[in-house]
Amino acid sequence: MLSILKQSHSGSSSSVAMPQGLDFSQALSEITGMGRGGGGGDLQEMRARTLSKRRVDMHGFCSPSDFQRSPYLSARGNIVSIFRGSTEEGYKAYHADKYDEDKNPNGIINFGTSENKLCFDLMSKRLTQTDMNLMEPPLLQYPDWTGHMFLREEVARFLTYYCKAPAPLKAENVGNPLSIGDCDLLITNLVFLVPEAVLIATPFYGGITQSVFLYGNVKLVYAYLDSKGLKICPMMCAFLILCCVLQGVTVRALILLNPQNPLGDIYSLSELRDYLEFAKRHELHVIVDEIYMLSVFDESATFHSVLGMDRLPDPQRTHVMWGITKDFAVSGIRFGTLYTENQDVANAVASLCYFHGVCGSVQHKVAQLLRDRDWINQVYLRANHARLKAAHTYVTDELKTLGVPFLNRNAGFFVWIDFRKYLKTGTFEEEMLLWKRFLDNKVLLSCGKAFECSEPGWFRIIFADKTHRLQLGQ
Amino acid sequence: MLSILKQSHSGSSSSVAMPQGLDFSQALSEITGMGRGGGGGDLQEMRARTLSKRRVDMHGFCSPSDFQRSPYLSARGNIVSIFRGSTEEGYKAYHADKYDEDKNPNGIINFGTSENKLCFDLMSKRLTQTDMNLMEPPLLQYPDWTGHMFLREEVARFLTYYCKAPAPLKAENVGNPLSIGDCDLLITNLVFLVPEAVLIATPFYGGITQSVFLYGNVKLVYAYLDSKGLKICPMMCAFLILCCVLQGVTVRALILLNPQNPLGDIYSLSELRDYLEFAKRHELHVIVDEIYMLSVFDESATFHSVLGMDRLPDPQRTHVMWGITKDFAVSGIRFGTLYTENQDVANAVASLCYFHGVCGSVQHKVAQLLRDRDWINQVYLRANHARLKAAHTYVTDELKTLGVPFLNRNAGFFVWIDFRKYLKTGTFEEEMLLWKRFLDNKVLLSCGKAFECSEPGWFRIIFADKTHRLQLGQ
Repeated sequence: MLSILKQSHSGSSSSVAMPQGLDFSQALSEITGMGRGGGGGDLQEMRARTLSKRRVDMHGFCSPSDFQRSPYLSARGNIVSIFRGSTEEGYKAYHADKYDEDKNPNGIINFGTSENKLCFDLMSKRLTQTDMNLMEPPLLQYPDWTGHMFLREEVARFLTYYCKAPAPLKAENVGNPLSIGDCDLLITNLVFLVPEAVLIATPFYGGITQSVFLYGNVKLVYAYLDSKGLKICPMMCAFLILCCVLQGVTVRALILLNPQNPLGDIYSLSELRDYLEFAKRHELHVIVDEIYMLSVFDESATFHSVLGMDRLPDPQRTHVMWGITKDFAVSGIRFGTLYTENQDVANAVASLCYFHGVCGSVQHKVAQLLRDRDWINQVYLRANHARLKAAHTYVTDELKTLGVPFLNRNAGFFVWIDFRKYLKTGTFEEEMLLWKRFLDNKVLLSCGKAFECSEPGWFRIIFADKTHRLQLGQ
Repeated sequence: MLSILKQSHSGSSSSVAMPQGLDFSQALSEITGMGRGGGGGDLQEMRARTLSKRRVDMHGFCSPSDFQRSPYLSARGNIVSIFRGSTEEGYKAYHADKYDEDKNPNGIINFGTSENKLCFDLMSKRLTQTDMNLMEPPLLQYPDWTGHMFLREEVARFLTYYCKAPAPLKAENVGNPLSIGDCDLLITNLVFLVPEAVLIATPFYGGITQSVFLYGNVKLVYAYLDSKGLKICPMMCAFLILCCVLQGVTVRALILLNPQNPLGDIYSLSELRDYLEFAKRHELHVIVDEIYMLSVFDESATFHSVLGMDRLPDPQRTHVMWGITKDFAVSGIRFGTLYTENQDVANAVASLCYFHGVCGSVQHKVAQLLRDRDWINQVYLRANHARLKAAHTYVTDELKTLGVPFLNRNAGFFVWIDFRKYLKTGTFEEEMLLWKRFLDNKVLLSCGKAFECSEPGWFRIIFADKTHRLQLGQ
């Protein structure tokens, strides 16, 4: 199947006959009229954009249009119903027609959902060992909403070790095991509790917009980065905050994704320090999402957790999130948590967490998993990083062969791809059509609009999948 | 320990010396000044209240006072922090000083949290059998947010059987496995989506107020019932809706708890029919919480599910909730679901459910459990009902001996107790002092105020506990 891309790219039409219909070159050419193999351009060609051109935008609610109102729902209910965007639409289509090697070989291949499908064998084996299968009465009862202490202690030890904390992190600062896959619910809870307005650099993981909108009704202030991954910096933040002040909006918090999703960037220690010092000067909360911290798969890259810093500039306003879904390749086991020294914030989040608790038996499993340092280091992380690296290499090599520009990073499960040259007029409408064309051809991707990217034509592809599916999808 | 109550009641002071300090008669006498054994009164003595005296009240936000504002939180964050009431305060105290036969024999006995502690042996055994311990890749991946189909099919079969549905219920109407203990999150999601204002009879499970406030910002309209358990009826609803209209508020939905919590009442088929027909006439959604449906422990009582009715008057506006936490005595395994034929509502709730999903492995366990009809009927329900009945009999016999009036019902885990005679002036302040006095004496109860009861002096006690703890607690 690998040949499809190459053939398509070189003008062959053999892919049309493929039963999977998994031909994204065809999709591109049909949308763009550029023909197969239309190409050229790379990251070097991207326009430089000056700081002053970066837009400041503020979003609270989406403005619904073009949808059929349900007589059974309130206005808010109707908005919730249509507040999906491409992410949910694609996700639904995928679940209705999911690719399966045996049962549905013509189904949709999912490169849109950020999950690591490379380690089910390891995790399945570890999670069914006898130490996992416990159902003692305390696990069957309502827990304290802050979580079972055995788990909080284990998380504290785990984060101390893997974040390279200068002093042992405290179990009492580990809050609230949450039934979440990503950290967007935690972010939502925090922005619900903390601000007025929150600053976030785009492109960013789009689930945050949805969750903040659905429950939070908080203004997200977007700092539009160049799509090529320029990192958010204090100077830009200061500029944006000033813009907000001029519009009568007070920014109370910053969100920092590290490693960044969808770009795959990781912040250096000095960048982190600058960022946190800046936040301190402006009395801003910093919400740091480190859910991909153990998914840095190349030894040349070094991840720095803010919890590993010698000194946090403003510990009472620094809140770190982590969970197992990404780093342990188990999206179906939903566990996330918040580390904060601020007891006011922890208590307020705990009040909300009453609604998002984690089963006692799952808390036990997670604690057992995090405790097993030997297995994590000797077996799991080695295998996981090697597999991630191999899959990343496979996909990026293919992109290079095709002459499609992309960001070459070493963290996360995604490659940020530049399809701008396939858009004729460079609009988001065209981007959406291209996205739909991929989906019609049984490949689910995520388009830049879903990440509030400022330039049409960027897509996120998830590479953390088995080679045969990567081949099929390409 | 059983003797404490009797001795106290008859004027003995021997209980003062008890190491547990678990003497509620003492607490009563100290608060009320009535002296030990002060008593008299029973349900027959309760005042009749006319319909016109029932208050109509509307609540959206609580008005915070007497709390220390955190400089780190927004106004909303601060409100969330203090929005706890006695329920959370008691729950926290309990978790900080939990009774344990061996490790903390002087700790707090929890008769406040509605959980069934009588069947951990059976559930623990069943949930650790080999069929439960599965970790196939699909269970480790993100599920469709509407839940794994194997579970939805199993829930549909289960509800068809136990709700005595006239025709098989459909898996596609079973929505959204939710990580919840009670149904209050589901109720919150529904009221978030459906109304303006929602009508509910008080006293009712107080978690609903909290959840509706925290996320929903929806008006709850209270229909104050007599504490002795007069059921909500169409005439009362019509009166309240009229009152609301006069105040410019449109009621869009009714919440029906069946079996009722905290009263333990169950609705007859004709009462249900009247209620649903009334709702249809007024185009009101009916949100029916049947989370205690299999916890009717006396054969003399018959529970009727709305799903068992020959014909639902308005199926598009009738939404039924159920979960396993109560009926299967596993508060720590959080699974609840919604049955509705209305796809608009189901889709909108699904959008919210993205944040409250259930682990794949837990979905598997629940499906296996619900599938095992023989074990449920022959082993579990028989034992559970017998144990509930015995514990209920034990507690109510003690109350009779003490001359404390109570509602004698056959469903749920609670007895609604009338302590009004122990209040001097009959205020909620006194009720709260009495509640605190119980807590100081290491017994956690729930006071009527937590259920928005209109009369001070009523308490809910959870009886579904082992006899030795019931003895200690009394």
